[in-house]
Amino acid sequence: MYQQRLECLSRQELEGLQLKRLRCVLAHIKEKNPTYHQRLGSPEPEDIGSLKDIQQFPFLTKDDLREAYPFGLACGHKDEFVRFHMSSGTTGTPVINPFTRTDVEQWSEIMARCLSAAGLTHRDILQITPGFGLFNGGFGFHYGAERIGCFVIPIGPGRTLMQLKFMKDFGTTALAGISSYPLRIIEVAREEGFDFRQTKLRVGIFGAEVWSDEMRTFIEKEMGIETFDIIGMTETGGVGLGIDCQDHSGIHVWEDHYLVEIIDPETGEVVPNGTEGEMVVTTLTREGLPLIRYRTRDITRVLSRSRCACGRTHLRIARIKGRTDDMLKVKGVNFYPRQIEEILMRHPEILPNYLITIGKVAGKDQVEVSVESSRLDESLKQRLEEEIYNFLGFHVEVKLLNRGELPRGPGKAVRVRFLEKTSG
Amino acid sequence: MYQQRLECLSRQELEGLQLKRLRCVLAHIKEKNPTYHQRLGSPEPEDIGSLKDIQQFPFLTKDDLREAYPFGLACGHKDEFVRFHMSSGTTGTPVINPFTRTDVEQWSEIMARCLSAAGLTHRDILQITPGFGLFNGGFGFHYGAERIGCFVIPIGPGRTLMQLKFMKDFGTTALAGISSYPLRIIEVAREEGFDFRQTKLRVGIFGAEVWSDEMRTFIEKEMGIETFDIIGMTETGGVGLGIDCQDHSGIHVWEDHYLVEIIDPETGEVVPNGTEGEMVVTTLTREGLPLIRYRTRDITRVLSRSRCACGRTHLRIARIKGRTDDMLKVKGVNFYPRQIEEILMRHPEILPNYLITIGKVAGKDQVEVSVESSRLDESLKQRLEEEIYNFLGFHVEVKLLNRGELPRGPGKAVRVRFLEKTSG
Ligand SMILES: [Zn+2]
Ligand SMILES: [Zn+2]
Repeated sequence: MYQQRLECLSRQELEGLQLKRLRCVLAHIKEKNPTYHQRLGSPEPEDIGSLKDIQQFPFLTKDDLREAYPFGLACGHKDEFVRFHMSSGTTGTPVINPFTRTDVEQWSEIMARCLSAAGLTHRDILQITPGFGLFNGGFGFHYGAERIGCFVIPIGPGRTLMQLKFMKDFGTTALAGISSYPLRIIEVAREEGFDFRQTKLRVGIFGAEVWSDEMRTFIEKEMGIETFDIIGMTETGGVGLGIDCQDHSGIHVWEDHYLVEIIDPETGEVVPNGTEGEMVVTTLTREGLPLIRYRTRDITRVLSRSRCACGRTHLRIARIKGRTDDMLKVKGVNFYPRQIEEILMRHPEILPNYLITIGKVAGKDQVEVSVESSRLDESLKQRLEEEIYNFLGFHVEVKLLNRGELPRGPGKAVRVRFLEKTSG
Repeated sequence: MYQQRLECLSRQELEGLQLKRLRCVLAHIKEKNPTYHQRLGSPEPEDIGSLKDIQQFPFLTKDDLREAYPFGLACGHKDEFVRFHMSSGTTGTPVINPFTRTDVEQWSEIMARCLSAAGLTHRDILQITPGFGLFNGGFGFHYGAERIGCFVIPIGPGRTLMQLKFMKDFGTTALAGISSYPLRIIEVAREEGFDFRQTKLRVGIFGAEVWSDEMRTFIEKEMGIETFDIIGMTETGGVGLGIDCQDHSGIHVWEDHYLVEIIDPETGEVVPNGTEGEMVVTTLTREGLPLIRYRTRDITRVLSRSRCACGRTHLRIARIKGRTDDMLKVKGVNFYPRQIEEILMRHPEILPNYLITIGKVAGKDQVEVSVESSRLDESLKQRLEEEIYNFLGFHVEVKLLNRGELPRGPGKAVRVRFLEKTSG
């Protein structure tokens, strides 16, 4: 463990620390940004008597952060900021998260904990494939690696042939990436006759996209590695909010730095322990952009607040099921792309490339799932359609494609497409 | 100044320090890499009595470094390395420079000196446009900025419209980039009606490519900024080997970290003070890949070893005239692309985009210079051909093109093209 004592605090110590830090973050907002303080109802830090008192504050949404571009909710003067990272939002105004020196230290600390939780030490050789720069991924792993002292290959995204070459030439033991990238690496390795068993690769740390347990099993089997699911986003201060440990019994969220609530996304009410809902995050130690009740849009549930087999006490949540804004609504049924992925990937013939197309035919919603498969036969197609029907309650057309037929793009994988009109 | 005392050591102190450190680096090589030590003739560090004794060692070339891929000349075990950077070589085996923790500190220190020499403080807002990752540029500026505490916009290369937007939205005061990138920014600014005078931009720090004084004047005038010429390469440990100060009377090379010799590229002999030749660099403080007499291929000369008006005592060299491997030989005449650039850019009508094409017509070398211009007339064309004739002694066909006619690529600018056969 990177910080044994802090990672193993008793629940009582942890919640005491959270309360103390919640007051600090409110005092910081009060001092640095009067508008933000007013937005919260001008609370006096000492009036916060318990963690539950946080429920008096309004939620903060991604749109609120966008509207604050560039520094509307920032706490501090530009002089105090050392850099910023930015959400990789597809369109419109980006979210800017300015970092103070302390924020960089905080980030390094939680990322060092994450890498250690995945079993990395200074002896490891970590190939960092997320991008460096405005996107937070590359730098997050970089800072964590700097703390634990492992040897970093700062290769960034793309150039998959070079990724494979370096894996061999430098004896890479751990790979960090967005969760669809190992799929591309596996594909190129197959084309090149590259054998992961002849490398020293043993750990994969992936995140930034929702990936099913079935996808995870596929990656672990193909690469012969143990994978870790890392969470975090630009808004919370970057990758590193939490990760699953070697016990793989849920994702530990670093509770001395973050306060987690799970709410009903419709009503905004906090749901009972163990109930699924939207994760809401309050940052307890961030200076540049402290968040009070930020709606992450991630759907999960609390698995446990007790000590894990690994010794860590920080709460464990379920792997992210989907994002509220990824939720699909067809014929009155709500579902997440990950749930379709689970059904597909249970079949060993199915390859990890699929596309869900939602379009209207004669005014009615139609769903089609195109998926690559190593076997194209009618019985597999019917089987998949049947399983999806059992899950959704309506018919979905499945199209089996040969390996390589679906387009591959750089960056995050596109899993859903909306057509205004379908031609058939 | 970032380190007043070290940057202003007397010549005697400086050379005493260099001798002491030269012995240290030889001892380090002896301890960590017997093959490398043998290559040098198995010297005993204490046998080095003066700086001139370095002339007993063989030169190290880029090809030597390539052949050593990945760690043949590295000094230390992978456990001691924290990352590596790589030469952006166009083809073939790359040069790998592994960094120890101490090397990262050394790099941060010299980059902090460079940024301070360019007048930057913690109040500045630095937009970093070189790439992050294997290329050393982005990280070099990043580490230097971290030391002096300025606010960094880690945007990386490309997305020129966003570069302009950020310059305005964040109040960028300093821009770092490879030296052809400001040309692209100026071009897009012109298309967008963007006025640099309405920004807070005051400093540009550019390097990695040879750029003439005329090009520099063009950039300074168009952007309304003061520019600084920064040198350094992957092999020497990245950008930051030296920079010109606000006196602009030559590029200071940090002599407590680097020992510079200027040699005749043909004979390998050290040339007299002030004579033009190839710069040879010995690293005095690098651990991962210490260089003894590395041939940089950069053509320059020593301008002064006396105290500069800025107070710094570290030697000053002329701005790089060209690289030995960029040298063109046509009809028995040797010249550098920069020299053609100088002739072209003296004319205010000429735009900073040109391409020198060298091809054979009926077995004879022919040179053609295509250049964009705001005025396309025969008299300007003839004038340019005359001036180039006066310089080279043979006729060169000049083609004037409209703005935007030459192709723009990402990365370093392509200034020379070789054609096997021309169609006439
Ligand atoms: Zn655990
Ligand atoms: Zn000076």
